[in-house]
Amino acid sequence: MIYSFANDYSEGCHPAILKVLSETNLVQQNGYGDDDYSRSATTIIRDLTASQADVHLIAGGTLTNLVVLSSFLRPFESVISAQTGHIFSNEAGAIEATGHKVEAAVTHDGKLRPKDIEPFLNKVRGYHVVRTRAVYISNSTELGTVYTKQELTELHTFCKANDLILYMDGARLPMALTAPSNDLTLADIAALTDVFYIGGTKCGALLGEAVVISNPELKQDFKYHLKQRGALTAKGRVMGIQFDCLLRNNLIFDLADHANRMAEKLSKAFAEMKYPLLIESDTNQVFPVLPNQMVKHMQDDYGCLLWNIIDEDHSAVRFITSWATPEEVVEKFISTLKEMQ
Amino acid sequence: MIYSFANDYSEGCHPAILKVLSETNLVQQNGYGDDDYSRSATTIIRDLTASQADVHLIAGGTLTNLVVLSSFLRPFESVISAQTGHIFSNEAGAIEATGHKVEAAVTHDGKLRPKDIEPFLNKVRGYHVVRTRAVYISNSTELGTVYTKQELTELHTFCKANDLILYMDGARLPMALTAPSNDLTLADIAALTDVFYIGGTKCGALLGEAVVISNPELKQDFKYHLKQRGALTAKGRVMGIQFDCLLRNNLIFDLADHANRMAEKLSKAFAEMKYPLLIESDTNQVFPVLPNQMVKHMQDDYGCLLWNIIDEDHSAVRFITSWATPEEVVEKFISTLKEMQ
Amino acid sequence: MIYSFANDYSEGCHPAILKVLSETNLVQQNGYGDDDYSRSATTIIRDLTASQADVHLIAGGTLTNLVVLSSFLRPFESVISAQTGHIFSNEAGAIEATGHKVEAAVTHDGKLRPKDIEPFLNKVRGYHVVRTRAVYISNSTELGTVYTKQELTELHTFCKANDLILYMDGARLPMALTAPSNDLTLADIAALTDVFYIGGTKCGALLGEAVVISNPELKQDFKYHLKQRGALTAKGRVMGIQFDCLLRNNLIFDLADHANRMAEKLSKAFAEMKYPLLIESDTNQVFPVLPNQMVKHMQDDYGCLLWNIIDEDHSAVRFITSWATPEEVVEKFISTLKEMQ
Amino acid sequence: MIYSFANDYSEGCHPAILKVLSETNLVQQNGYGDDDYSRSATTIIRDLTASQADVHLIAGGTLTNLVVLSSFLRPFESVISAQTGHIFSNEAGAIEATGHKVEAAVTHDGKLRPKDIEPFLNKVRGYHVVRTRAVYISNSTELGTVYTKQELTELHTFCKANDLILYMDGARLPMALTAPSNDLTLADIAALTDVFYIGGTKCGALLGEAVVISNPELKQDFKYHLKQRGALTAKGRVMGIQFDCLLRNNLIFDLADHANRMAEKLSKAFAEMKYPLLIESDTNQVFPVLPNQMVKHMQDDYGCLLWNIIDEDHSAVRFITSWATPEEVVEKFISTLKEMQ
Repeated sequence: MIYSFANDYSEGCHPAILKVLSETNLVQQNGYGDDDYSRSATTIIRDLTASQADVHLIAGGTLTNLVVLSSFLRPFESVISAQTGHIFSNEAGAIEATGHKVEAAVTHDGKLRPKDIEPFLNKVRGYHVVRTRAVYISNSTELGTVYTKQELTELHTFCKANDLILYMDGARLPMALTAPSNDLTLADIAALTDVFYIGGTKCGALLGEAVVISNPELKQDFKYHLKQRGALTAKGRVMGIQFDCLLRNNLIFDLADHANRMAEKLSKAFAEMKYPLLIESDTNQVFPVLPNQMVKHMQDDYGCLLWNIIDEDHSAVRFITSWATPEEVVEKFISTLKEMQ
Repeated sequence: MIYSFANDYSEGCHPAILKVLSETNLVQQNGYGDDDYSRSATTIIRDLTASQADVHLIAGGTLTNLVVLSSFLRPFESVISAQTGHIFSNEAGAIEATGHKVEAAVTHDGKLRPKDIEPFLNKVRGYHVVRTRAVYISNSTELGTVYTKQELTELHTFCKANDLILYMDGARLPMALTAPSNDLTLADIAALTDVFYIGGTKCGALLGEAVVISNPELKQDFKYHLKQRGALTAKGRVMGIQFDCLLRNNLIFDLADHANRMAEKLSKAFAEMKYPLLIESDTNQVFPVLPNQMVKHMQDDYGCLLWNIIDEDHSAVRFITSWATPEEVVEKFISTLKEMQ
Repeated sequence: MIYSFANDYSEGCHPAILKVLSETNLVQQNGYGDDDYSRSATTIIRDLTASQADVHLIAGGTLTNLVVLSSFLRPFESVISAQTGHIFSNEAGAIEATGHKVEAAVTHDGKLRPKDIEPFLNKVRGYHVVRTRAVYISNSTELGTVYTKQELTELHTFCKANDLILYMDGARLPMALTAPSNDLTLADIAALTDVFYIGGTKCGALLGEAVVISNPELKQDFKYHLKQRGALTAKGRVMGIQFDCLLRNNLIFDLADHANRMAEKLSKAFAEMKYPLLIESDTNQVFPVLPNQMVKHMQDDYGCLLWNIIDEDHSAVRFITSWATPEEVVEKFISTLKEMQ
Repeated sequence: MIYSFANDYSEGCHPAILKVLSETNLVQQNGYGDDDYSRSATTIIRDLTASQADVHLIAGGTLTNLVVLSSFLRPFESVISAQTGHIFSNEAGAIEATGHKVEAAVTHDGKLRPKDIEPFLNKVRGYHVVRTRAVYISNSTELGTVYTKQELTELHTFCKANDLILYMDGARLPMALTAPSNDLTLADIAALTDVFYIGGTKCGALLGEAVVISNPELKQDFKYHLKQRGALTAKGRVMGIQFDCLLRNNLIFDLADHANRMAEKLSKAFAEMKYPLLIESDTNQVFPVLPNQMVKHMQDDYGCLLWNIIDEDHSAVRFITSWATPEEVVEKFISTLKEMQ
């Protein structure tokens, strides 16, 4: 195989991280997130978000989602997600395993809007049904779309008015914030959500997600929750170093921007060749609808993910680019595609 | 501070790991443990254990314990542990959070023997009480002691006779297997337990524990459990590389042996100076009983953990050495101690 | 208020039960279901089902559903229900609180068929998603519809072929089995499901549901699950007496038949008056679409449940009859309706 | 068998209850605790406790314990109990199944005092261990002992000072409040605890426990918790009638007093015959130490529970009396005993 576009975690990490890991390797540090590098990463995030947020570094997205949501929901409270949301469709019941129902709204573009949530709040049966208490969104979404500042502000206002916690899964937040259509900043996000995370795993780290808690009520006792769910890493330095490194000089955003631009090249190529896209994404995921035969020919040399069966002869396929995707590979792939046509 | 003996995860990882991380950094690999390095680590572990065990790599000990135990216990089944066992005394209720009672037996040396477990099996009240179904042991224990082959064989026989699953927490298994008094091999352990893990975090890795499942019934569907608990790492390569590296040419055992020898130097020094030890440990943890004043003087330069208050003037203190503890630091510390006396 | 049709648990119990409760009141009995009356009820149910089923009596439907489902599902396994199913829409997340996802299929009549379940089995992502392991159906359904023998046989065959447990919620099973369109017997149901329950609460008892377990694998250790979930009643005699009484001489079916006939009278009256029904039910629930003004006028004298808003001027309303609904009240209500028109 | 002293739930209920059940049988009532009788029982309890407490009626003690404790504990919080406490030793892990650790203190008489709890609060390891947040006591205890007003006041003061919720399991509270040594009133208990329950099952009811919540913070949303755990009874009238009946004119206390006096007769008889008692109980449980041969001879005619093996020839045995134990049976039993001697 020449190159796999199947996901954005096929490579290791940005080399700058490996350098710092080596340089600091024998410096003794406290465990459990109380190390110099985690503290430095926290300082940078507080600067970037213009907030006094609490920051915790966690080894993985599903683990992050389940710790965050189970930490503040009471037993009878639920979280609402788009039907395409990672916690509903892709985490093997991780949230339910902590005792909470995930309610799902059908949306065309993976984004939740107040009108999608409203029907879940008007439950007439009171204590016979779960109470919707948290709103889970992902930015960029699982379909590659991003929230505008106006959309997030409307959600924020709606959540405040209805006593709902707003949580943003940011596994691909750097890609969202560098998308052409984006008009949000990290400071906006910290101000408009109660808690969100900045994904490291898919944006240049070996592993690690940085949870950022703005809402003071959610800050308390969070380390107990981390410990209890197995999410308190002994050598917190491992993630501290990575985020410290990625967040300095906007490295993480440069990496995300590269991934987005590689995906844009793919999108343009598919458009030129008149292949429709399942959804307009302006981040690092591209969903062209291709003839099955083409997909089949391609797969010896290039990996991708079968997304949807469209009809007998066509499928929607997902291509993902990453910080590590070489531009020349993208170009070679496009040439091959054109030859196939 | 000159050096902290407070725990064995204060430094990074063995440099050989960083080298391989760098060399393989841009090689694309499958996610979720299906990478070349994880497969290679599995092959080595199968060789070392002379078994066809399943191997899964997990980012942390508490996460490992909760996934393993919750994966096979039915809701009304409990696990028994020594009262000093990590799952009972040190994991913020992680096992209970998955719905299971941890029963605790009082033992003097942190080890469980059939006679400690027996009273928990003879419950006369049937379905009014939990059914003890799993036995949790740690080797080396939280008190630094190790199991002999005869002790483990007796436990194995007892567990088989009583339909109990035997699970060994091996956060410090390499130290146990290189202890002077040890007569067990990895193959013995795979044969005498249903499931155990080889700790990486405390033995030269950045993070990671290798779960080894011998019992065929426990193998099935384990990845579902990993995923649901947030323990399925996207870039499984990160732990695959570390275990592949640590397990080649017995590196992990050389590192553990070093830690043990450094601790032995400390033990001998305390003995020479007539300070009693709380417990005879022959691995990398030492528990001297020291005058409070000495502890106080020492703590500016050397970190350690207050373990127990013995009387008004004396405390038991825990010193831990690691693969990274420099021999000259140990010697300097001993000189300082002698001067203090 | 003259009479409430809001639900079928507004009255006490059939007088025959009170008589036996009084007669046996001071006879000492064992606790926890090991009393003479519970044993007798079990014998009758084994006769009626022509099976060696295990029988357990539980104080309530939600409690029954959560004990049954959590007793055999492994942590990553889910149950599928119609979107109108009680466990999905009406139990405050009771199943999720035991750690399991409830997946929901949209159906027009509250019944599940193999084609509704199939899409949930063809999950391509393996351990990234829950595994559907149980099928929850209710008979009669929450919309008053009933399963035919052919439908249940097809479900049974489909479940066997796909290693799915089939569980029937029988809160209103006596009404289903006495519906005009029914062609199932209790013996059929025991043979075609793995576990089901016969509802007492809505069919003449003070409280109590009789769980009937045909599948031998599900029988084991069930009392542990009952105890752990708080569903093992100390004075099991209370429910034993009720089921013993209700199941003798088909009393429970006579009571259900009465409820069905009262509902049929209502249905016919609405039809005569040209009010459409939301769904064709032939059990004790009737869902007419009525002008809002009529509903409003009616509600001082007769209780009913607002089910759905149809348009600005019309609503679907639910009327329920019970074993205790007097025929003259039904007739008086119909007269009133006709006068309103 | 002439009579079983094995437990206090072998008979049905006080006949006055059956009378009211019959008289009110066909009166329609709202479901889920919103019926006239439950409201009346609430009014009586508010009078008796001189409080504005919330009252909820639940079908069983284990169910009550698990709903109450899981309703206010956050995931990492634990409850402490005496080692003999019902939730620790006798509920098949019901509390742990809701995710919470039960910590146990060894006490000689089944009662908890501040000094028993203190060691659990001084955990030095912070978020590595559960946080003790609730104190579970039973009155009378599982050993038949009762709390004095001074003891309960000290516990209350201690709990307030340490932000601990104090919960009293009152399965046998009427026996405690009518014990010769008692100096507590229901009003004291409401003032000195955050939540407690008055047991019906063991004091004249068919089933049912009345949870009384004084602490305003615990009142909120309690019906959601009831529903989610399957503890919201459709025909709440069944328990409403029973408590309304038992609490009028102190009936429940008269019944408890009878049980206590029957037990006192047994105690005195054993004392006269020089059989030692395991523990001094002044409620309805008696724990004599008897020769095994005597126990054996007795058991054809009288049931009792083997409690403890004392030595090769002697066992501690538990006799329980109830509201329904006939005085002549007690006298006959004592005669038999004397003959055996």
